[in-house]
Amino acid sequence: MASAQAVQEAAITGEKKKLWGGRFTGATDPLMEKFNESLPFDKRMWREDIRGSQAYAKALARAGVLTAEEAEQIVEGLGKVELEWEAGTFKIVSGDEDIHTANERRLTELIGSVGGKLHTGRSRNDQVATDTRLWLYGALQDTRGYLADLIKTAIDRAELDVDVIMPGFTHLQPAQAVRWSHWLLGHAAAWQRDDMRLRDLMPRVATLPLGSGALAGNPFGVDRQFIARELGFIGGVCPNSMDAVSDRDYVLDTLYFVAVHMAHLSRWAEDLIIYSSGLFKFVQCSDAYATGSSLMPQKKNPDALELIRGKAGRCQGNLAGLLAVMKGAPTTYNKDFQEAWQLMFDSVDTANDCIRIATGVLSTIRINPDRMLAGLSPDMLATDLAEYLVRKGVPFRETHHISGAAVKMAEDRGTTLFDLTVADLKTIHPLFEDDVLEVWDYNRSAEMRDTEGGASKRSVLEQAQKLKRYLGAEGL
Amino acid sequence: MASAQAVQEAAITGEKKKLWGGRFTGATDPLMEKFNESLPFDKRMWREDIRGSQAYAKALARAGVLTAEEAEQIVEGLGKVELEWEAGTFKIVSGDEDIHTANERRLTELIGSVGGKLHTGRSRNDQVATDTRLWLYGALQDTRGYLADLIKTAIDRAELDVDVIMPGFTHLQPAQAVRWSHWLLGHAAAWQRDDMRLRDLMPRVATLPLGSGALAGNPFGVDRQFIARELGFIGGVCPNSMDAVSDRDYVLDTLYFVAVHMAHLSRWAEDLIIYSSGLFKFVQCSDAYATGSSLMPQKKNPDALELIRGKAGRCQGNLAGLLAVMKGAPTTYNKDFQEAWQLMFDSVDTANDCIRIATGVLSTIRINPDRMLAGLSPDMLATDLAEYLVRKGVPFRETHHISGAAVKMAEDRGTTLFDLTVADLKTIHPLFEDDVLEVWDYNRSAEMRDTEGGASKRSVLEQAQKLKRYLGAEGL
Amino acid sequence: MASAQAVQEAAITGEKKKLWGGRFTGATDPLMEKFNESLPFDKRMWREDIRGSQAYAKALARAGVLTAEEAEQIVEGLGKVELEWEAGTFKIVSGDEDIHTANERRLTELIGSVGGKLHTGRSRNDQVATDTRLWLYGALQDTRGYLADLIKTAIDRAELDVDVIMPGFTHLQPAQAVRWSHWLLGHAAAWQRDDMRLRDLMPRVATLPLGSGALAGNPFGVDRQFIARELGFIGGVCPNSMDAVSDRDYVLDTLYFVAVHMAHLSRWAEDLIIYSSGLFKFVQCSDAYATGSSLMPQKKNPDALELIRGKAGRCQGNLAGLLAVMKGAPTTYNKDFQEAWQLMFDSVDTANDCIRIATGVLSTIRINPDRMLAGLSPDMLATDLAEYLVRKGVPFRETHHISGAAVKMAEDRGTTLFDLTVADLKTIHPLFEDDVLEVWDYNRSAEMRDTEGGASKRSVLEQAQKLKRYLGAEGL
Amino acid sequence: MASAQAVQEAAITGEKKKLWGGRFTGATDPLMEKFNESLPFDKRMWREDIRGSQAYAKALARAGVLTAEEAEQIVEGLGKVELEWEAGTFKIVSGDEDIHTANERRLTELIGSVGGKLHTGRSRNDQVATDTRLWLYGALQDTRGYLADLIKTAIDRAELDVDVIMPGFTHLQPAQAVRWSHWLLGHAAAWQRDDMRLRDLMPRVATLPLGSGALAGNPFGVDRQFIARELGFIGGVCPNSMDAVSDRDYVLDTLYFVAVHMAHLSRWAEDLIIYSSGLFKFVQCSDAYATGSSLMPQKKNPDALELIRGKAGRCQGNLAGLLAVMKGAPTTYNKDFQEAWQLMFDSVDTANDCIRIATGVLSTIRINPDRMLAGLSPDMLATDLAEYLVRKGVPFRETHHISGAAVKMAEDRGTTLFDLTVADLKTIHPLFEDDVLEVWDYNRSAEMRDTEGGASKRSVLEQAQKLKRYLGAEGL
Repeated sequence: MASAQAVQEAAITGEKKKLWGGRFTGATDPLMEKFNESLPFDKRMWREDIRGSQAYAKALARAGVLTAEEAEQIVEGLGKVELEWEAGTFKIVSGDEDIHTANERRLTELIGSVGGKLHTGRSRNDQVATDTRLWLYGALQDTRGYLADLIKTAIDRAELDVDVIMPGFTHLQPAQAVRWSHWLLGHAAAWQRDDMRLRDLMPRVATLPLGSGALAGNPFGVDRQFIARELGFIGGVCPNSMDAVSDRDYVLDTLYFVAVHMAHLSRWAEDLIIYSSGLFKFVQCSDAYATGSSLMPQKKNPDALELIRGKAGRCQGNLAGLLAVMKGAPTTYNKDFQEAWQLMFDSVDTANDCIRIATGVLSTIRINPDRMLAGLSPDMLATDLAEYLVRKGVPFRETHHISGAAVKMAEDRGTTLFDLTVADLKTIHPLFEDDVLEVWDYNRSAEMRDTEGGASKRSVLEQAQKLKRYLGAEGL
Repeated sequence: MASAQAVQEAAITGEKKKLWGGRFTGATDPLMEKFNESLPFDKRMWREDIRGSQAYAKALARAGVLTAEEAEQIVEGLGKVELEWEAGTFKIVSGDEDIHTANERRLTELIGSVGGKLHTGRSRNDQVATDTRLWLYGALQDTRGYLADLIKTAIDRAELDVDVIMPGFTHLQPAQAVRWSHWLLGHAAAWQRDDMRLRDLMPRVATLPLGSGALAGNPFGVDRQFIARELGFIGGVCPNSMDAVSDRDYVLDTLYFVAVHMAHLSRWAEDLIIYSSGLFKFVQCSDAYATGSSLMPQKKNPDALELIRGKAGRCQGNLAGLLAVMKGAPTTYNKDFQEAWQLMFDSVDTANDCIRIATGVLSTIRINPDRMLAGLSPDMLATDLAEYLVRKGVPFRETHHISGAAVKMAEDRGTTLFDLTVADLKTIHPLFEDDVLEVWDYNRSAEMRDTEGGASKRSVLEQAQKLKRYLGAEGL
Repeated sequence: MASAQAVQEAAITGEKKKLWGGRFTGATDPLMEKFNESLPFDKRMWREDIRGSQAYAKALARAGVLTAEEAEQIVEGLGKVELEWEAGTFKIVSGDEDIHTANERRLTELIGSVGGKLHTGRSRNDQVATDTRLWLYGALQDTRGYLADLIKTAIDRAELDVDVIMPGFTHLQPAQAVRWSHWLLGHAAAWQRDDMRLRDLMPRVATLPLGSGALAGNPFGVDRQFIARELGFIGGVCPNSMDAVSDRDYVLDTLYFVAVHMAHLSRWAEDLIIYSSGLFKFVQCSDAYATGSSLMPQKKNPDALELIRGKAGRCQGNLAGLLAVMKGAPTTYNKDFQEAWQLMFDSVDTANDCIRIATGVLSTIRINPDRMLAGLSPDMLATDLAEYLVRKGVPFRETHHISGAAVKMAEDRGTTLFDLTVADLKTIHPLFEDDVLEVWDYNRSAEMRDTEGGASKRSVLEQAQKLKRYLGAEGL
Repeated sequence: MASAQAVQEAAITGEKKKLWGGRFTGATDPLMEKFNESLPFDKRMWREDIRGSQAYAKALARAGVLTAEEAEQIVEGLGKVELEWEAGTFKIVSGDEDIHTANERRLTELIGSVGGKLHTGRSRNDQVATDTRLWLYGALQDTRGYLADLIKTAIDRAELDVDVIMPGFTHLQPAQAVRWSHWLLGHAAAWQRDDMRLRDLMPRVATLPLGSGALAGNPFGVDRQFIARELGFIGGVCPNSMDAVSDRDYVLDTLYFVAVHMAHLSRWAEDLIIYSSGLFKFVQCSDAYATGSSLMPQKKNPDALELIRGKAGRCQGNLAGLLAVMKGAPTTYNKDFQEAWQLMFDSVDTANDCIRIATGVLSTIRINPDRMLAGLSPDMLATDLAEYLVRKGVPFRETHHISGAAVKMAEDRGTTLFDLTVADLKTIHPLFEDDVLEVWDYNRSAEMRDTEGGASKRSVLEQAQKLKRYLGAEGL
């Protein structure tokens, strides 16, 4: 093992001029350069960095720090930088440690020393917070669109297949007869909550930190409300400059939104993985979302659903990770916060991918109503039997025991509830009469649950309508 | 080591009659009884369980399932149970495995078999979701009150001490001169965001699951909107019964709110722990919130702040734990969800305690303006020096290097910026003139940052006013 | 909302004399007292606190700090305190903020001022680390015993039911015929790894911090190796006093062990929940570990398994929580660490309960070999079909396609592989001959996998033997 | 918003022939292809995939499945594939969804259909587990080397600077005089524990899953012990095939090792960040590991340390994420597990980078003994004052109060303990005599703590020796 000292000496070679230099006399460890740089992942915010700088240049002009001509030069110069990024011709050079220095370096090459006026009164601390909020606001608008597509697909399928009855499970045990559509809209209800959570979050993301400087505020009187309007920050401006550069709640809130939404998708995926298992066969994933085995020729595995379920765990980790990062840092800005960006990109990308994959799975999945029907069993109507007596005035607690006794009688005889005669039932309770046979009907059982939110056809279609109205009202 | 078989045989003794019995013939492992029961922690929701049942009894009467007399008997009977809990005379008996069975068992003892009609069409699945939402809604109203008190205390202290200048830190390095009040209102800004997050959450907590049965809905046509109004559920009713018994988002959202708020308190505590360290002594905790050492007589430790910091970690764990629980369960109801309640109680209690402790710490902490002043150093005005030249038209990027050169000159001489003469500065850049000496004023530095959110006195007092208006508008 | 100031004034009343007092002149907020005290949860370590103090008193005597008589007085006095705890007569009084102060206070009441010599050179910092390590070492020995019982139960059942064939799943899709015992010993293999992890951990738990003082070490020359031997600390002594009071790795390691072991139990429980679902019915939980529904009389839910699955999530949260606590604290001791104890107790108790419950479930679960057999399907032998050709020299990649073609032929005809004639198969590949029919045998399929670790009967019984030898070698 | 259906139709175009095909008739969503593929991240295991396949080919030959010539052809062909990867000429083509299919596809191109015999009896399930274990075993050997370098650097600096006294902190309050070296070796003690944890983990990583097939074992009698020896798997073979393809403990254990080690580095970094803050200035990071501010010319920030602190949080998230993934999956193999690899790579890379960066920081950091001395204060000797009386027979509890009274007397007079005369002290307790003045010596205070692990020079140098011996014994 080479001594650490020797490694160090070998490692520290030469010194590079940095934008923020002027005073540094030491050198930099090459591993440290790589460790420190964020350009490999923050360059995807090149557009937002440029838009933020253009708005800031205009604000500097309004504040009298730049002349109108200087501001115009900068705005146009940044426009050229943007074109280079769009065309894929932007050249990253050594020393471009992040997207901010890269863009400003290029701007100055293009327009000369006036480019050096852009950063007046600004710090990378307020700049990076602005760029990431702008990027995130856009990405989450996409998310809302994808999520709306998923919910619409659920509504479409629920309406189409509304007559399909299937066993509803609690504790993964068959419990009561419900509709496939009811199950599906149950998941859509969770996704609607996710959208509401996202909607509430949007203005908190779109709140402007720019004009906060490194921590103490801006000394040139830039009009922050003007910048907020320029950039479409619907939440206004951050109220305190020290908090503005220290706050990553908008990332945490996003990671939390993703973690919960992915948990919802994971539970939906888990249901479908079970429903598509060889012993259920309620549903079958389209070949587009399943893959085979390298060893077993007969296998078709619901890979898409399993990946969604797995990625849900990873997104929980992203949240746990950033929470630990933030908790452990004093105010105001600390370099630790750089860790936020990769977690943000990963969770947002994952959510956007998974929602679209889920939409694909749902729109192409085949359901097998016969298998669902075969999954129902007479004892799932035991509650209906109890309710029969309730309607005749017997207290529910008694009817529950009575119905349990009927289930047991059938079990002891090795038959099912359907095989018990009215006479058999009368031995258990005298109020059973011939009309009890009407209870043995799975569709009737679902139709009985006609209260708001229940399994009846009317209720399920009403749920679909309400979801449509919600999406419409949200403009989605 | 005794064989597992033998342990089992010894363990399984006798069989207890359970409310949900009637069919079971096996016995129960005593450890399993303890493992399964939730009464030790869910009994604190006795009041909510009773209120929910009273509303449900009224709804059953409106639906014609109970007569008016029966409903009145039940409502009154439950009132008596409530009085027993209030008086501390409620007796828990063997078999009371949760608060729901305990209350109904007692009700039936008090009013006879009509008590057995209360659970008609209801399941513990929709009941427990109702109780916990009701409890949580109340507890979070307290939280909003405590949080408002904390913010008010911050406003009061910020206004009182607005003239105190202190070093602002980035990367824990002294960066620029700010106000103590500016630092404090930065934390208050984070707490305000927490309150906004909580406010958005309230209607999502107060949404009614009752009337969802075990999973398929209610077959007796109870008016769920009526129940929601009776119980003050401002968010209306859960739209889908399968989702309603499966959803624990309201707990997750709460655990997340607590995790983030505690992270904010932790960062505030961390700042104060550092500021109260022997080498800073910016602040001193009141003896009420500090404790001594069993070994070192001179020590006074900021225990309250450290406990807050520690408990922030624990609350992050509560969130991670429930996310893992929820992700791993298929729909609809699963017993796994029982784990939610202790995590919910722990996080809510912790938050409510910590907010009040923080309020106590903040309202009694002593600040040492002299030590804060002593913590400022001339090089913290290097940015002001650069800005001096910016105002004379030099591009900021150049002024940054120039100011860096001045810092270096002072360092090389073993003195400070204050000791450089105008002549010295002129050797670095010709635009330095006599008025540059005005820059050497910490108060002026803070006053220059007069943009919205900045460190100037006007801006800080404006921030305080806005916070007050926010609290007023929220009725806090 | 009452003003925070008023709340504070009301709250801070009177001042209590504390053991560590002498200098404090302030008062204490009653909420802070409650917030600060650890006795409610650390009192369960009364025995370890006493044992640690007795060993320390002896060490003080050996170092000449106490006379032999003084040490004897203290050791005997502590013995009396121990008897009070055992008898349940120990009285906690106001001011007993933790188990250390409680025991020492009582000791001094019993033996007078010589009790005040016990804490010489010791701090609560090294004392609490000693007590918790001692407690944990004992608790984890229990855990190893419980875990061994669970593994033994798995071995017993595996040997008993070794002839039962069942479908093995990948991606929750039926994949190949295996043995129920093979599945069970697969879980036992994970549990064995858990025991190995635990075994490695034991000496790291049983390493002595006592003699580290508050942070700087012990100034009275106590023989730490002597104390370690007295207390059975097999890992020796902590090598650095600052680390010794700052280190909570032994708790983290335990929380991690529990998190992984619970994840293993959770996956085992998940398998069984699925296998006991109405559509599988491979297994049926004993009534002792299942409960019914308050609404549905026919239901029997695998509550024990679901609780294990849920608690696995919570234990993951405990680990995440303590990691966040530890990461966020500077060295050496900080009050944050107090959070470690409740998490430790919760995870250890949960693991010890869950392992025993799992043992109970496993020793009483009924298996249904007929249902398992019915869960097998001809296409699960497609790999065997491919292997048939491999043995005739056809490259596996081709046989995989050929076998896939046979599966497809059967599917297209609406039949199964079993219904294909040798002639049919010959149309797919000429090397199929009459002996191909031997492939259609599930038991043969399992028997073919006779390599170490495979599904053959010989291999499974060998796995059981190896596990027994492991347990024997570990003295379990 | 385009309808989901339309998106799907556009997305599903054409069908690609896959290695595992032969039966699939559906098409694949392009987003799903990307979602499913692992080659972008698993290709870094190209070498391990090849080595594993070479060993497997040899085993197939020994089992008589391949002829010696066939095995040689495959081994040599794989050697050519290896050379292509090494030379950077390996061409990835469409359909190469993971490193396994890519390598086998290329092999078959190079050597023809005999390449199709390689996968006989093998599955990607046992293959990927083998590749990752092999990769991880190598990577963790590097980690042990880097960690040893870090510890050696700590030993070197501790020995070099052993005479430097500094304040030791508890609760971040100055507590007692210790040595800088004592503080440093306290961290090294934690790093040593990390190495022990890693050492225990190595054989559990290096345990062979190959020969487990998809889940049921290998039907061709390959000698798994032979493969284990070939590949250097020191832990032998996985005992059960179903567990072998289902187990990711070796990744979890690694993520946990990294999480704890990074927490240790984070706490070390936190200490140094505080010690380098403007108000401490105990230490100063080399310019190689610090960066400047884009706004404030005078700033030098300890970025390397902050990044380490931040990345510690992220690594905790990686662990939380994988735990949630694993807990939520039934046995045996599920596609969810694919998430494990990126988390593994990220945590291992992060640890390896951070350890080297930390070594660089530590080997170049400057310490300021004068500032450390200035951070000491007379009241830090209060415990020594108490111990003075203990040595005269006064019970410690009394001496603690007496010493506290002395501290208070000094405080009340606005002076320090050093300014109290012997006469002053005698008013507090008669046993104080002239020799009490010897107590006022910080170096003496540290020297007094001469027990094993204490702050005395002898003890500190002994700690360094023991660490060296440990590293030597481990061959590091």
